[in-house]
Amino acid sequence: MSSAWLLPEHIADVLPAEARRIEELRRRWLDLARSYGFELIAPPLLEHLDSLLSGTGSDLDLATFKLVDQLSGRLLGVRADTTPQAARIDAHLLNRQGVTRLCYCGPTLHTRPAGVRASREPLQFGAEIFGHAGLEADLEVQELALDGLALAGVTAPMLDLADARVVRALFAGLPLAAESLADMVAALATKDADRVQALAATWPARAREGVEALLDLYGGLDVLAAARERLPASPLLHQALDDLQWLATQLQASHPEVQIGIDLADLPGYAYYSGVRFAIYGEGRPDALVRGGRYDEVGAVFGRSRPAAGFSLDLKALAGDAAGDRCQPAIRAPWGTDTGLRAAVRALRVRGEVVVCALPGHAQETEEFHCDRELRQVGEQWAVVPIQPRTNG
Amino acid sequence: MSSAWLLPEHIADVLPAEARRIEELRRRWLDLARSYGFELIAPPLLEHLDSLLSGTGSDLDLATFKLVDQLSGRLLGVRADTTPQAARIDAHLLNRQGVTRLCYCGPTLHTRPAGVRASREPLQFGAEIFGHAGLEADLEVQELALDGLALAGVTAPMLDLADARVVRALFAGLPLAAESLADMVAALATKDADRVQALAATWPARAREGVEALLDLYGGLDVLAAARERLPASPLLHQALDDLQWLATQLQASHPEVQIGIDLADLPGYAYYSGVRFAIYGEGRPDALVRGGRYDEVGAVFGRSRPAAGFSLDLKALAGDAAGDRCQPAIRAPWGTDTGLRAAVRALRVRGEVVVCALPGHAQETEEFHCDRELRQVGEQWAVVPIQPRTNG
Repeated sequence: MSSAWLLPEHIADVLPAEARRIEELRRRWLDLARSYGFELIAPPLLEHLDSLLSGTGSDLDLATFKLVDQLSGRLLGVRADTTPQAARIDAHLLNRQGVTRLCYCGPTLHTRPAGVRASREPLQFGAEIFGHAGLEADLEVQELALDGLALAGVTAPMLDLADARVVRALFAGLPLAAESLADMVAALATKDADRVQALAATWPARAREGVEALLDLYGGLDVLAAARERLPASPLLHQALDDLQWLATQLQASHPEVQIGIDLADLPGYAYYSGVRFAIYGEGRPDALVRGGRYDEVGAVFGRSRPAAGFSLDLKALAGDAAGDRCQPAIRAPWGTDTGLRAAVRALRVRGEVVVCALPGHAQETEEFHCDRELRQVGEQWAVVPIQPRTNG
Repeated sequence: MSSAWLLPEHIADVLPAEARRIEELRRRWLDLARSYGFELIAPPLLEHLDSLLSGTGSDLDLATFKLVDQLSGRLLGVRADTTPQAARIDAHLLNRQGVTRLCYCGPTLHTRPAGVRASREPLQFGAEIFGHAGLEADLEVQELALDGLALAGVTAPMLDLADARVVRALFAGLPLAAESLADMVAALATKDADRVQALAATWPARAREGVEALLDLYGGLDVLAAARERLPASPLLHQALDDLQWLATQLQASHPEVQIGIDLADLPGYAYYSGVRFAIYGEGRPDALVRGGRYDEVGAVFGRSRPAAGFSLDLKALAGDAAGDRCQPAIRAPWGTDTGLRAAVRALRVRGEVVVCALPGHAQETEEFHCDRELRQVGEQWAVVPIQPRTNG
């Protein structure tokens, strides 16, 4: 049993310094979302598999761990994404007519890691606005995401905008099987030009030229004008490009520190986006910190199709990026049953101080905790004094 | 798919009011443990099954959901208890010589509910002291648990003390198979006198009388004196009774509001306790809110046997008990791109206010959130004013 402590691949313990950073981030995101009026929910880790995967694509199915329920014999899944659960809660449990803002923060499990350095147990924070089809909801969740990253110390964020409607407009009217569509989306996402050309070889000329043009349509805001020229015109396309332009303008005004990019072929993730999509990157980090967008159809399977826009992120990945580890200095106290000592310890803790009692026989050990002061008896009183240097031996 | 939203038995969504209560409790327990010098860790939900169940009994095995790891083909478990993980981290990752205080807070999953009203997804908070064999560690975790319950609004707690050494002393020298032992423990836990008598029928007279006496040895502190008279004397038994007396005296001095009971046959839970055990009850609640004790052997399987004492509880069960739902009143704001408006909204949120922007077309809906003030343009300025009554129609 010498390997009893080896963890599965892409699964890790979170040790004290990192755990404290994550907890701090968690509170900041939750408090920020609350200040916007987002209400906290905590959907369960376990659901019936058909409920958990309702209206989602095969990506989520493959990512989901399956279990058998001993109580019912039915197949359960451990959630790999909390977004569909939030849609279920909006549709069924809250069932409000108006706008509902929900946020959540909890672990998810993935059968396979999303990337080389990704955890299979992300701590997912997410926020969603249900019930508003207008761009104001997209803007609000993007601003919330940017404000949260700022609180997490991410300076100079880059926000990439895309829109699921661009590809949908391009594919409209083409006799495409679901599989061919999935292949094309994958080829576009990796900007695999040869594969895109091969898959589009038999398409009508305008559509083929359009999908090939898509490969180049990333960069600054000038990409929007280029897209109008190079992609086949349609009302859906123009609405998408107008929306992206409006959002970029608003974001640039409210968050001038953000560098905004456009990537019209950026399509990774689960198959539920229906409109504007976005990803936010931090400086020097290849993977997106936040992904989100509009997925109006996600609640339809629960019998209530409501407009929805939101985002999510992995707080563990974000915390890994955090600089500096500010450990609160502690006060060392002797152990004893003296009522004055115990009252002094209690009073300090209530005031927010960390007081570590040195248990009998361990007086020399509190070095492991960062103690910069100690509680000492001075006459009749217990007082906090700077730690006195020890004599060796 | 009309039943897509039905959840498995003993699995529930946590909706906003309850989620906020649980989050508040979570922060109070974590901050309290921190003020005692407990360091936060976050062990993973998933581990190799042999590691997760190392040194634990069959109860934990039965409670643990099993999965196959697609990456390795090995059997994984979803943790049903975080305590053995904390012992693993103490033994292997931190590997300190001195006292280590650890705490954690996260979900666990159980294949079957622990009780009629129990969730299969408890949110487990726990705290453990490793490296100190003395009773001071037992006392510290008991006091931490009582202080946490006080912060959670539990008045008039009842703390029951027991000790695994009492039964161990009684059983010492008896040729008992593991199964007979488990049967006897189960019969004692349910105070099933007939079963106890049947199982002890062939035992030597002193041991049989002792185990039958155990059934009556619960009540106030006078039980300790009765135990000395009625149980077969041994150094182990007397040490246990002395320890219980000392702890009861200390607790009564530091927490005079606590009603202390003794129940020497109280043995439920996993098979890793080695010394003093305790359970804390709230008024009018049949199930223990907190369970804990000493389990010195729990890290042995990881190659490092260290003294350990701690406790854990389900914050969901505790929150269900909480009275009153103090919802922070919010400020309603119009939606707009006016820079003065946006700056005012941002400033209010930074100050800790909840500001809900009424998205266009939804101005009538913010009633769902409890807004008692609104942001209005007064001349050139944006000001927070009481909400003006609406005219009907």
